[in-house]
Amino acid sequence: MRDVAVVGVGQIKVSEHWERPLREMAVDAAMRAVIDANNIELKDIDMLVVGNMLGEITDTQAHLGALIADYLGIDGIEAYRVEAACGSGAAAFRAAYMAVAGGFADIALVIGVEQQTNVFFSDITLGLAMAADAEYEILHGASFLALNALLKKLYLDKYSDVSEEGLAMFPVIAHENAVNNIYAMYRYKINVSKVINSPYVAYPIRLFETAPISDGAAAVILAPLEDAKKYTDTPVIVKASEVSTDRIYLASRDDILLPKAIRISTEKALRRARVERKDIDFFELHDAYSIMAALSLEASGFAEPGSAPKMATEGAYHIGGDLPILTMGGLKARGHPVGATGVYQIVESVIQLRGDAGKNQVDGAEIGMAQNVGGVATTVITTILARGD
Amino acid sequence: MRDVAVVGVGQIKVSEHWERPLREMAVDAAMRAVIDANNIELKDIDMLVVGNMLGEITDTQAHLGALIADYLGIDGIEAYRVEAACGSGAAAFRAAYMAVAGGFADIALVIGVEQQTNVFFSDITLGLAMAADAEYEILHGASFLALNALLKKLYLDKYSDVSEEGLAMFPVIAHENAVNNIYAMYRYKINVSKVINSPYVAYPIRLFETAPISDGAAAVILAPLEDAKKYTDTPVIVKASEVSTDRIYLASRDDILLPKAIRISTEKALRRARVERKDIDFFELHDAYSIMAALSLEASGFAEPGSAPKMATEGAYHIGGDLPILTMGGLKARGHPVGATGVYQIVESVIQLRGDAGKNQVDGAEIGMAQNVGGVATTVITTILARGD
Repeated sequence: MRDVAVVGVGQIKVSEHWERPLREMAVDAAMRAVIDANNIELKDIDMLVVGNMLGEITDTQAHLGALIADYLGIDGIEAYRVEAACGSGAAAFRAAYMAVAGGFADIALVIGVEQQTNVFFSDITLGLAMAADAEYEILHGASFLALNALLKKLYLDKYSDVSEEGLAMFPVIAHENAVNNIYAMYRYKINVSKVINSPYVAYPIRLFETAPISDGAAAVILAPLEDAKKYTDTPVIVKASEVSTDRIYLASRDDILLPKAIRISTEKALRRARVERKDIDFFELHDAYSIMAALSLEASGFAEPGSAPKMATEGAYHIGGDLPILTMGGLKARGHPVGATGVYQIVESVIQLRGDAGKNQVDGAEIGMAQNVGGVATTVITTILARGD
Repeated sequence: MRDVAVVGVGQIKVSEHWERPLREMAVDAAMRAVIDANNIELKDIDMLVVGNMLGEITDTQAHLGALIADYLGIDGIEAYRVEAACGSGAAAFRAAYMAVAGGFADIALVIGVEQQTNVFFSDITLGLAMAADAEYEILHGASFLALNALLKKLYLDKYSDVSEEGLAMFPVIAHENAVNNIYAMYRYKINVSKVINSPYVAYPIRLFETAPISDGAAAVILAPLEDAKKYTDTPVIVKASEVSTDRIYLASRDDILLPKAIRISTEKALRRARVERKDIDFFELHDAYSIMAALSLEASGFAEPGSAPKMATEGAYHIGGDLPILTMGGLKARGHPVGATGVYQIVESVIQLRGDAGKNQVDGAEIGMAQNVGGVATTVITTILARGD
């Protein structure tokens, strides 16, 4: 097994791209990654893995591996799609990482892409629900939002000292950091009052606690670390990419507020990377809902159960805090094109580790963690990246 | 990179399983593979890769990796789905193979599963068309069957000495071999007259030239070769698993009758396995339509362009012939639950290489090739397997 580095990254602005077909966004992000890498041309790529959740629903299109390879002009290569609901992006990254580490590919391209806004909203609501259990949850009318609302209700019930204001800090931090990210969907600040006075979309979740339905694509290029300096002055090493799952039907879980897939994938990643939590300089977590941000921090072991909102209020998670999170806006403010999100998180982490994050730079960032979640923490992929120079 | 072996296989009968949910078929096939392997319990499995094409369409269900891991009782492990249209099964096998070869997993389970008959036929016709190009083919009304019909028309036009009777030999061989396969959907013989007098379903393709819409699941367990004897007396070595793609939109291809994805993936697989075509003892090819059987043989280099039907008529492809094909009935007669098919092909190859194929045994089979096709030969995965004892 050889070490692997990220040698190129690309992303397009997350937005409502009504006019842009899925394939076109994917090609755009991929070309940006190819341009970002030095001395890599399209013809050098020998593997493409596409992360996408809803192509069949949104574009009447399966088979995105071959399709996007074709539209990139590199048909002939190995290509397929990996799907793990909203965790599809980082799961695709994991598959490509294993291929490069194992010597099956030398230059692998990972693209996360999702087009959600050019179909009826009801179709997307049903599509996103497919991350949950069709027979035990969807059939009873549970939307994906509704399942997360149950989590927030349980959380507020169990931890009586947690306030709505505390959970509201997660979207506040996300929006604060998105201001300086030209690829973010919502580049304006909000405050706690704005969040807790926004309407309920599924009680007790409020509008400003939810990531937007959005479109986007992001891409990374992987190469063996030993070759990385040929392709970039600032290689970023993949120290770990680890996946874990949990029971899908929420009611069947042992501890719904400490999702084991988050805990196991974090522990596996830390062990594989041979680092400790205190070594992590920033954490790109999966704040699809503010409650999920809190659960990620707590189940990952960065905060005691029930304490993440308080720590957020005390400033721990701002840039400059103990553990900056959502440094480019997170899912809430950068946006959440579901199958692309995991790749966006890795692209942003690479930008931080290169020292290219501008006003949002985490000082002295050496090691970053990105955590992509499929379903209600049902599939969790934790990636640890480190400066390579 | 370490050598990898198949140490357990399982399959359920392909049929119209109206009453069986997708997840239940998947668990059934997986349990059969676990029982087939010695000294492997469910808890030993550390990775699950699911091959499935149409879960969103047929079961309102994405996220099949986590779902099936859960229903197997092994939630917590790494799991996701790989999709490459009808090539999803072997693409999932490829992903798991790389993980075991690279040391990322020790016991990996691959499940191919598809449930197609419990939804409206129009939905399945649209779903299968998603293997083609939504914007340039589906939008114009082309079904997947219709695209293959264009190929057959071109083939008959180009090779004026090819007869309908010659192409009809492929379904004849498939049905002949399915008689002895208890897992096959159609266990009866047909003759050439039956095929060429069956009605057109899309001119010039006739009913008995097409694989059936069907349901099924198949599973294999992979382990490092060095450990394989712990799990089976008859390990089968994965000599190669190679993927190639072609342009998806048929009209954009250079040579539509010699699909390059078939050629490239075959050549890569032979090179990786260090074997020659003459070493291949049998070939489980992707006879979704009789025309595709001919193109597979020709583009893979086992027959001159335009000659496969004649060779079939002369007996080359029967069991006992130069290159037995479809030894357990192929897609036509064993059935074609699309995302499961690639795994069925591998299961059947393992059974041949173990010498367990009964009346259909290929004498002295040492090396077998399985070729799974996604789209109209758009993604092709070629797997070469060898007796390990």
